[in-house]
Amino acid sequence: MKRIFASVITIGDELLIGQTVDTNSAWIAQRLNHMGIWVCHRLAVGDVREEILDALHYESDHADLVLITGGLGPTNDDITKKVLCEYFHCSLREDPKTLERVKKMFSSRNFPMLESNLRQALVPDCCTVVPNDYGTAPGMWFQSNHVIYVSMPGVPHEMQGIMTDRILPELKTHFTLPVILHRTLITMGLGESQVAERLISFEKSLPDNIKLAYLPGNGLLKLRLTVLGDTQQVLAHELDQYYVVMKDILPDIAVIEDDVSLEGWIGELLKKNHLTISTAESCTGGLIASKITSVPGSSAYYKGSVVSYANEVKERILNVPAEILERYGAVSEETVIAMVKGVNTLLHTDLAVAVSGIMGPEGGTPDKPVGTVWIAAGAADKIRTHLYHLRYGRSRNTEITANYALRMLGEAIIDENKRV
Amino acid sequence: MKRIFASVITIGDELLIGQTVDTNSAWIAQRLNHMGIWVCHRLAVGDVREEILDALHYESDHADLVLITGGLGPTNDDITKKVLCEYFHCSLREDPKTLERVKKMFSSRNFPMLESNLRQALVPDCCTVVPNDYGTAPGMWFQSNHVIYVSMPGVPHEMQGIMTDRILPELKTHFTLPVILHRTLITMGLGESQVAERLISFEKSLPDNIKLAYLPGNGLLKLRLTVLGDTQQVLAHELDQYYVVMKDILPDIAVIEDDVSLEGWIGELLKKNHLTISTAESCTGGLIASKITSVPGSSAYYKGSVVSYANEVKERILNVPAEILERYGAVSEETVIAMVKGVNTLLHTDLAVAVSGIMGPEGGTPDKPVGTVWIAAGAADKIRTHLYHLRYGRSRNTEITANYALRMLGEAIIDENKRV
Repeated sequence: MKRIFASVITIGDELLIGQTVDTNSAWIAQRLNHMGIWVCHRLAVGDVREEILDALHYESDHADLVLITGGLGPTNDDITKKVLCEYFHCSLREDPKTLERVKKMFSSRNFPMLESNLRQALVPDCCTVVPNDYGTAPGMWFQSNHVIYVSMPGVPHEMQGIMTDRILPELKTHFTLPVILHRTLITMGLGESQVAERLISFEKSLPDNIKLAYLPGNGLLKLRLTVLGDTQQVLAHELDQYYVVMKDILPDIAVIEDDVSLEGWIGELLKKNHLTISTAESCTGGLIASKITSVPGSSAYYKGSVVSYANEVKERILNVPAEILERYGAVSEETVIAMVKGVNTLLHTDLAVAVSGIMGPEGGTPDKPVGTVWIAAGAADKIRTHLYHLRYGRSRNTEITANYALRMLGEAIIDENKRV
Repeated sequence: MKRIFASVITIGDELLIGQTVDTNSAWIAQRLNHMGIWVCHRLAVGDVREEILDALHYESDHADLVLITGGLGPTNDDITKKVLCEYFHCSLREDPKTLERVKKMFSSRNFPMLESNLRQALVPDCCTVVPNDYGTAPGMWFQSNHVIYVSMPGVPHEMQGIMTDRILPELKTHFTLPVILHRTLITMGLGESQVAERLISFEKSLPDNIKLAYLPGNGLLKLRLTVLGDTQQVLAHELDQYYVVMKDILPDIAVIEDDVSLEGWIGELLKKNHLTISTAESCTGGLIASKITSVPGSSAYYKGSVVSYANEVKERILNVPAEILERYGAVSEETVIAMVKGVNTLLHTDLAVAVSGIMGPEGGTPDKPVGTVWIAAGAADKIRTHLYHLRYGRSRNTEITANYALRMLGEAIIDENKRV
């Protein structure tokens, strides 16, 4: 079967001056990859006629499908539509349905309708209009010399809506796609090269149609096996076999057998076991709570957090004894144990996790340098603790600490479930 | 003066399967842009020989400087060095200094040294080695036909370290760069097209060497004026003049006169006014606290947060009266006012901000649909409130709510300062 190759062109000066991080490309690549379309390129260019034309020519030589985002806004610097007309040798026409939709959108929101908003209804006359239910600029579908081009707005939630509702289903019928399956194992505790060393002969044993990818995150390493072929059932069986072999090589570091977030994994564990949790955060300053509550439905098991940035708050609200703070300091095993006990009692929860550390750049001492972090997790009568020494900048230290805390909380939940 | 054009090539399958969001390109573009180098392209390709060679050829036609990240890891899929040798017609040699550095790094961390780690000391013999003080893979500097190529590891903190310590200073001496100055005005409350409408004649009045960029974020719109030329003093004067004109057109929506984050702005306000703050979060689940504490030194003014995800926590810990929760509900003006009072009292702070809302996808009612958010901020005796109706997905609603809350907190700080 012929493989389908795609490329993504993102248009906009904001990408080239570094004000905007391009999350669209990753989102698009993930969705296409999961349905068996291989993204071979991503190209970002500015709002410049020649650059856009160059990019279109370059990608049309490389791909069967070119997805274009950006440059469709109402302001003067947005020129994508004009350039698409030039590239496809056609002209702009007014699309009555889009015009109606834009007018309706403004009147329902009680926004004044501007001249520039009306221009959103102008589309190249050689394209098929793809309605946008999330904003004013419509999507546009072109076909030329066996290549499909789709132009979409760069606003992430609009692009995601158009892709999900319209483009992905259309691509499935347009192309004959292979079956592609993935299985992910999330590990923690060893670096990429150490894991790779342990998997050398496993990797050599993989057949041509199975690939192993190493995807390191903040304190995590995802191992993803991907299989490509024709028959769903045969492939699933083959993938499962290799997955089990891989997992058995790494029993000490395997954490989650699924491509989920740590907070999603914890949510599932808690719902299954009917347990509630709370958090007490010092150095992570609310990041753990923020991650836990990013999961829809987390209110079923999560009661809340005390972010005790000041020592006084640890003492007064979380009941960490003053003598512990004085004798061992805020960054100590004794303090995080007391924080777990305190927040469990205060918020009436089964389990809690607490962190205290020095994230940098200031605040380090010879005894406790920047990167020193204590984490504790558990129920009042059974608390596990761990000391970490991180060696990055403030934001990365915080991100890694939050991940370690979630991992420890997950282990505490599994443990608690065995006890009850 | 000739403008210097750069392009960024990011290498790695993880970028094309969508597992990794490319933050490196934005970081690099921002740094280069600020010193007067214009990034004209960003290209991402997989760990595939032909694709990498293609990208190098394509970019060498477009740019004076090509920055390459990724594909230098110790695992087998990392082939960048081999391909660079092929492109520049040279071979790999062992670099003794890098070898020594890698060995030292492993022994100081008590990590076992692997065969694959030793390979990190192999470099193309036609490059100048750029030491990496943050990891094992060194940077590499090539020059060919008046184009500079720099290859760096894809791990963000390693790339950032090499760029900051070595590459950016070197580029400043290598190229004759123009003077480039930026000034940013952060606005809140109007959309891009509405602001653009108000700035139509201002934009037309701008000389050729001054550009205005619209940079929308989550609930924010940054307006950035950039001026390019030869003489620092003349340009600064010219930029200031236009900046003041622009600001005077938008007095009602201008929030911050600097390219800082909302949390950074609040930190400066608080330090100047010697005030302390706390937060009480329901629907944002710790995100506001997390943003505030992302600022180094925030412990000087931030005491902590109560994330009251459960109503019971609002009542028991924050002292929100049960009759308010019953009568008006958790998402109400009365509740957020009580939360501000409660957390100020509990944590002994001058000012606080509180939020309560329905972020979705579940939890909406006909009266209070998903996106309904109440925010309150202030001191015990002077509290401002606002009701918002957001219309996005869970994560964007949360992000925007956090920004609105920080803005309201900032206004409350300015207000409080006038009172005392």
